[in-house]
Amino acid sequence: MAVSWTDSRTVGELLVELSADGVPVHRQIEAAIRDAIRSGRVERGTALPATRRLAEALGVSRGVVVEAYQQLVAEGYLTSRAGSYTRVALGADAQDPPLPRAADELAIDFCPCRADGAIFPRKAWLRSTRRVLLEATPADFGYVSSRGVPRLQQVLSSYLNRVRGTSAKPSSVVVCNGYGQGIALIVQALVARGARRLAVEDPCADDDAVPVARAAGLEIVGVPVGPDGIRVEELERLDADALVLTPSHQWPTGGVLPATSRAAVARWAREREAFVVEDDYDAEYRYDRAPIGSLQGLAPDRVIYSGTASKTLAPGLRLGWLVVPSQILGDVVEAKQLADRGSPVLDQLIFADFVDHGEFDRHLRRTRPIYRRRRDALLSALHARLPDLEPTGIAAGLHLAAYLPDWLDEGRLIAAARERGVGLHGLGPYYLSGGGRAGLVFGYATLDEATISAGIGVVADAVAQVRDRA
Amino acid sequence: MAVSWTDSRTVGELLVELSADGVPVHRQIEAAIRDAIRSGRVERGTALPATRRLAEALGVSRGVVVEAYQQLVAEGYLTSRAGSYTRVALGADAQDPPLPRAADELAIDFCPCRADGAIFPRKAWLRSTRRVLLEATPADFGYVSSRGVPRLQQVLSSYLNRVRGTSAKPSSVVVCNGYGQGIALIVQALVARGARRLAVEDPCADDDAVPVARAAGLEIVGVPVGPDGIRVEELERLDADALVLTPSHQWPTGGVLPATSRAAVARWAREREAFVVEDDYDAEYRYDRAPIGSLQGLAPDRVIYSGTASKTLAPGLRLGWLVVPSQILGDVVEAKQLADRGSPVLDQLIFADFVDHGEFDRHLRRTRPIYRRRRDALLSALHARLPDLEPTGIAAGLHLAAYLPDWLDEGRLIAAARERGVGLHGLGPYYLSGGGRAGLVFGYATLDEATISAGIGVVADAVAQVRDRA
Repeated sequence: MAVSWTDSRTVGELLVELSADGVPVHRQIEAAIRDAIRSGRVERGTALPATRRLAEALGVSRGVVVEAYQQLVAEGYLTSRAGSYTRVALGADAQDPPLPRAADELAIDFCPCRADGAIFPRKAWLRSTRRVLLEATPADFGYVSSRGVPRLQQVLSSYLNRVRGTSAKPSSVVVCNGYGQGIALIVQALVARGARRLAVEDPCADDDAVPVARAAGLEIVGVPVGPDGIRVEELERLDADALVLTPSHQWPTGGVLPATSRAAVARWAREREAFVVEDDYDAEYRYDRAPIGSLQGLAPDRVIYSGTASKTLAPGLRLGWLVVPSQILGDVVEAKQLADRGSPVLDQLIFADFVDHGEFDRHLRRTRPIYRRRRDALLSALHARLPDLEPTGIAAGLHLAAYLPDWLDEGRLIAAARERGVGLHGLGPYYLSGGGRAGLVFGYATLDEATISAGIGVVADAVAQVRDRA
Repeated sequence: MAVSWTDSRTVGELLVELSADGVPVHRQIEAAIRDAIRSGRVERGTALPATRRLAEALGVSRGVVVEAYQQLVAEGYLTSRAGSYTRVALGADAQDPPLPRAADELAIDFCPCRADGAIFPRKAWLRSTRRVLLEATPADFGYVSSRGVPRLQQVLSSYLNRVRGTSAKPSSVVVCNGYGQGIALIVQALVARGARRLAVEDPCADDDAVPVARAAGLEIVGVPVGPDGIRVEELERLDADALVLTPSHQWPTGGVLPATSRAAVARWAREREAFVVEDDYDAEYRYDRAPIGSLQGLAPDRVIYSGTASKTLAPGLRLGWLVVPSQILGDVVEAKQLADRGSPVLDQLIFADFVDHGEFDRHLRRTRPIYRRRRDALLSALHARLPDLEPTGIAAGLHLAAYLPDWLDEGRLIAAARERGVGLHGLGPYYLSGGGRAGLVFGYATLDEATISAGIGVVADAVAQVRDRA
């Protein structure tokens, strides 16, 4: 067998290729570095390897490397300071566009459905990380089942059965990257089984099930939503193969599906052999209302339950989970396997540890009163400053909806508030049919009480402006 | 607005519903817990809330809860020990199947393409985690760009340009969940642009591009692989819209695509306006061969570069990255958005910190000699015990291939070794056409030198057995 050797090396992770074509070695090193800088492959400020390390790695004398560096410093490509690394002085000619700004330019934004990153349990998360890194076996760093890490499957099924009244077994749990991926996997599984028409609530979220299902070729039909969630009698007429539902806290209007409707949905699914996706997105936050057991517990053979850590911990974790009926489990797992072979293992182990050690319960106990105070501040401010608005769906979650009086135009109010630096979000975009009762969706999770109160004051001014101009 | 109150509560995260129908409260609590245990919603060993906390939450006297617990202990549903939580004693009737065993039952497994979890840099990873959790802003816990966290885009483009000779800008980097997701996103983007036929190397991996592309409806055609990677002249005939390639270390046979072939591939792509996916899966491990600059550097407008932390750190991290030409970038980003709205943010920040602090370079310097020693041990053992095998592709990565002599049957050898507790992996499954030169793929990354040597000894015995029976 032949082992090929050449004269080039990755050195200090810098690609330098040397050839034996008679060009002095220091010139070759200069050319390699100059070319890397000119082409933009090495960026302004990058530290070069120490001369001794580069020399050792290339198998040349240190003097040769020093000479090359000095030449490039003289040419202005590099800068050198005593006691520090030699660094790249010049950037490439082609400059990158500036990176997008993460911060919103609005002073106050009532953006719905975000957890407050400022109350993320950093210390407890770090403790769980430390334990997991200490205890993990070498196999834990490898590929695992695309369903999820067994320990998290067990922790989640136990947690959901206890808290949400689901009927889950560890083997029926599929861990996914948030509901965003969960619904994509479900849609793929439904399509694989021949589904053609998907029913969704009208209004509903415009950024998850609907675009994913449309991209997969499914026809979308809307089930009208009343004060108590969907009108089940309308569902019967739609000839749909599946239904996506937020029964515990309708998104965005906040209604709770009553027991009779829940039973009717379960019956509909069984009769048609349809599947219901239960998007239980904010189940953990209930303020002054009974916890509503999951729909999945009623019909575990027809309901795909979906939960997420996006509201309780952080959307950035991309941690979600499905409880999947056995008939469609294989299709969902295959979709997950094709999608990314499984979710990140350490994250799953850390979250399992976090739940197991009671940190999740503790975090919920700590954050519920915080969010409740914010909701109360919002309700008080709306009552005092905007009594013509009609709040709804206030008993749970991280947002509420408020219907507008007939004389107040949703779009013009949003524009007027935005001019004043306050972000409002209308119900309009969530109606499938394009029309429906005008209103706003107020997220209150990321704003403290004083800010909420001040923000509603600004909105009241905006309302006055819109009214005066009308 | 109406606020609905009822008599039920999630208490200590246990769903207990109380009604005012005249049944004594302690009986209602008993029934709720008994039902939860019977239905399997609460598992054996689960700790119940402390009596005081449950009582407070339900608004009943503690004595009522104590009475309910005592009754259930008497009935055998719960167990109680002084100074400890009351726990569930009985499991549900319907038992779960046992969880799948993570550990392989083979004594020695030459499974290819795994990093060694035992040398994962746990302490450095924890340090990066601590820094990130300390420094992260609240916005870092929220939704981010589906392309990736700007800091990691910058770190990766800088790293890849420096080490792999790519021509990447931060804005051209898309972070994804390993190559498994990367290739799925690319396939979706190609399909969205009208691609119909995908060329792959023959042999090639059987678990990423091929199944994903087939599921997406693409026709797969194979380009024969010789000792120096694909035969480019064969590519010309195939009328393909895209090509997936491992130019730096052909998987599985280990060839390196020479400069003339690389130029020909770039020309082919430009002429046809086709895209080339460069799967640079093990670029960081080079032992006695020049580092080969990326193909992407040659043709950044036609090559989608794909890298991964699966070989350098751990597959379980599910961390991969693409460098995407601007023409197809929008399609890839849209596919990522629909897939899962972006990869986990903390993981991205931790990896960026890990690279930024020089830990990644340090880790590579530490692990290269470890893997090199294992490769050397494997080569020595093969030379000494199995001189009829013909190793190839040995200069890089975490695996090598070895062709078998004509008289040795691949399947029978694998079966004979498995009987002896040694896992071997044949080239057979990787040939698209179903036929090709018989051989084995030896992964050596997770085995120490003594184990490798012992394992090859067992394989030699298996060879002798197959030969004697032939």
